[in-house]
Amino acid sequence: MKYKKINIPVLAVTMGDPAGIGPEIAAKAFSNDKIYNYCCPVLIGHIATMENVMRITGVDLKINKIKEISQARFDQETINIFNIEGINLENVRFGEISAEAGDFAFHAVKKAIDLALEKKVDGIVTGPINKESIKKAGHAFSGHTEIFAHFTNTGKYAMMLADDNFKIIHVTTHVSLRKACDMIKKDRILDVIGLFDSGLKKLGINSPRIGVAGLNPHSSDGGLFGDEEINEIIPAIKEAKKSGILAEGPVPADTLFALAYGGKYDGCVAMYHDQGHIPFKLLGFKWDKIKKAMESVRGVNITLGLPILRTSVDHGTAFEIAGKGIASSEALIHAIEYAVKFLRKQ
Amino acid sequence: MKYKKINIPVLAVTMGDPAGIGPEIAAKAFSNDKIYNYCCPVLIGHIATMENVMRITGVDLKINKIKEISQARFDQETINIFNIEGINLENVRFGEISAEAGDFAFHAVKKAIDLALEKKVDGIVTGPINKESIKKAGHAFSGHTEIFAHFTNTGKYAMMLADDNFKIIHVTTHVSLRKACDMIKKDRILDVIGLFDSGLKKLGINSPRIGVAGLNPHSSDGGLFGDEEINEIIPAIKEAKKSGILAEGPVPADTLFALAYGGKYDGCVAMYHDQGHIPFKLLGFKWDKIKKAMESVRGVNITLGLPILRTSVDHGTAFEIAGKGIASSEALIHAIEYAVKFLRKQ
Repeated sequence: MKYKKINIPVLAVTMGDPAGIGPEIAAKAFSNDKIYNYCCPVLIGHIATMENVMRITGVDLKINKIKEISQARFDQETINIFNIEGINLENVRFGEISAEAGDFAFHAVKKAIDLALEKKVDGIVTGPINKESIKKAGHAFSGHTEIFAHFTNTGKYAMMLADDNFKIIHVTTHVSLRKACDMIKKDRILDVIGLFDSGLKKLGINSPRIGVAGLNPHSSDGGLFGDEEINEIIPAIKEAKKSGILAEGPVPADTLFALAYGGKYDGCVAMYHDQGHIPFKLLGFKWDKIKKAMESVRGVNITLGLPILRTSVDHGTAFEIAGKGIASSEALIHAIEYAVKFLRKQ
Repeated sequence: MKYKKINIPVLAVTMGDPAGIGPEIAAKAFSNDKIYNYCCPVLIGHIATMENVMRITGVDLKINKIKEISQARFDQETINIFNIEGINLENVRFGEISAEAGDFAFHAVKKAIDLALEKKVDGIVTGPINKESIKKAGHAFSGHTEIFAHFTNTGKYAMMLADDNFKIIHVTTHVSLRKACDMIKKDRILDVIGLFDSGLKKLGINSPRIGVAGLNPHSSDGGLFGDEEINEIIPAIKEAKKSGILAEGPVPADTLFALAYGGKYDGCVAMYHDQGHIPFKLLGFKWDKIKKAMESVRGVNITLGLPILRTSVDHGTAFEIAGKGIASSEALIHAIEYAVKFLRKQ
């Protein structure tokens, strides 16, 4: 019997904020015995921090410090770390906001983007960063997505969440709810529907049925409260349909996700961050009231529209449990799996 | 053995919009063999419409047309109908918006309120109305809650949703999302937390732990996007705590409901309609993709703060399946059960 040869992608995985759960979930994920089956991961991180969390989590891997991707050794006993130099993390404490941690997290992401643009890696998987620390370090970005868009010079992009229950894309993300209302415009909605349609196809859904949410309660009940449905959302859906996309709506947001969960839609277009994140996390996150911690955290965040591939965990830095070694690496492993899935189709 | 005597409450149940599923779910609920165990229900409805849906659903009850509550006969074979006279429903068709249907639905609710204020009934359970039909009939109300507030002269009230998974109260409801943002004010939030605390106690929760949502994504991440958390929500929570209420927050909306579902909170305060309705309906509604209909619809809507008791189904008129006899009466029966539960504690 002959094996079929396939290309296993090289992925840059960023460590995330050193004060959060990013380092420990990276340690756990890199020691998972299956990930080398389908990818060659390199951690963009910090050696001393990783040594510390490997002790905490009991993960036993040999560190291979690299300065070029070509120096990586992809075997299960090794963790390849591309060390970000020049930022002193000695005073960073788990669970605390600091400019140093924010600066480090930012530069790790920036390095990963450079590596992807130079085609040294095939895709990027990001660990959780803390927006306040990023801000404290003087970097004016409201999140990962915005950093990626900026450094890849991308104008049209959107944040998609994916797991077994839902595929959800967002018209707006990290802006105030008032600003989100201002940003609900026909052209943007149409772009997002288009990105979503092609993204869902890359995930193997041939003719994706897309449900588009309304912005206002009951999709404004025919204009009784709010006019964004009539002026922006309905015209965008009409134009998407004309181009052959199976878009429907506006579906009142409080039934859209129940319908999608029941199988009526392959994907949902959310108008603002929480409209999509509330249903996604309700089914993807599980609070354990005995342990007083999130027991299971699933869900992958994918930026559609970029010239490079990027997936991410969808949870945050979880400062309240950082450094305790109890955080689950499930979401990070899912993010890696989704990255591979996307790359197969590209 | 001696039985303990308890008072069984008399409930006015409104038929809802004649063109929606209200009449048929009322027929099914009134024929349920358990509801007479715990309440004496009277339908505020329309004889000819009910005769029609009883044929459609195969419900076999004797109609007792009453003009006074004292004329009601509370036995299982009978449906007592307080007939709303003077509105011609001959041209009303299932699934169609009309001024006649809206006018009827409105007057049935108004009659129920009068009966409750006169203490002829102990509480009210409302069937679904159509806001566009209500508007077409010239009644300027955006929903049931507003009708009840107006005719009972109530200033401080709030919409609560309840089922086995969640208890959720809303700071704002049937207004555009933009207007909802304007209405997020400390005093209103504080009133709602107070109403919620006493409402949850009436449902038998002695020291309710209340999670209060933020308005903006990530509760604004410390003011990075939006200032309502800092200026309005946090001060309201502080003041609620001072008065001894176990309020916490602002909790980012996309984790609050996962936490509450996992048992961390007894109740959630939602800032706007969909913030509370999305998680509630996701777990309470179940789409059947074979039947192409909502298979199960749970969830009760309770107006807190009124001088009279009012519960309601939380679903709409479901025009797409109205008149087919397939709509489930589960939510209406739950609304009746919750009304009785509340009345026991009053």
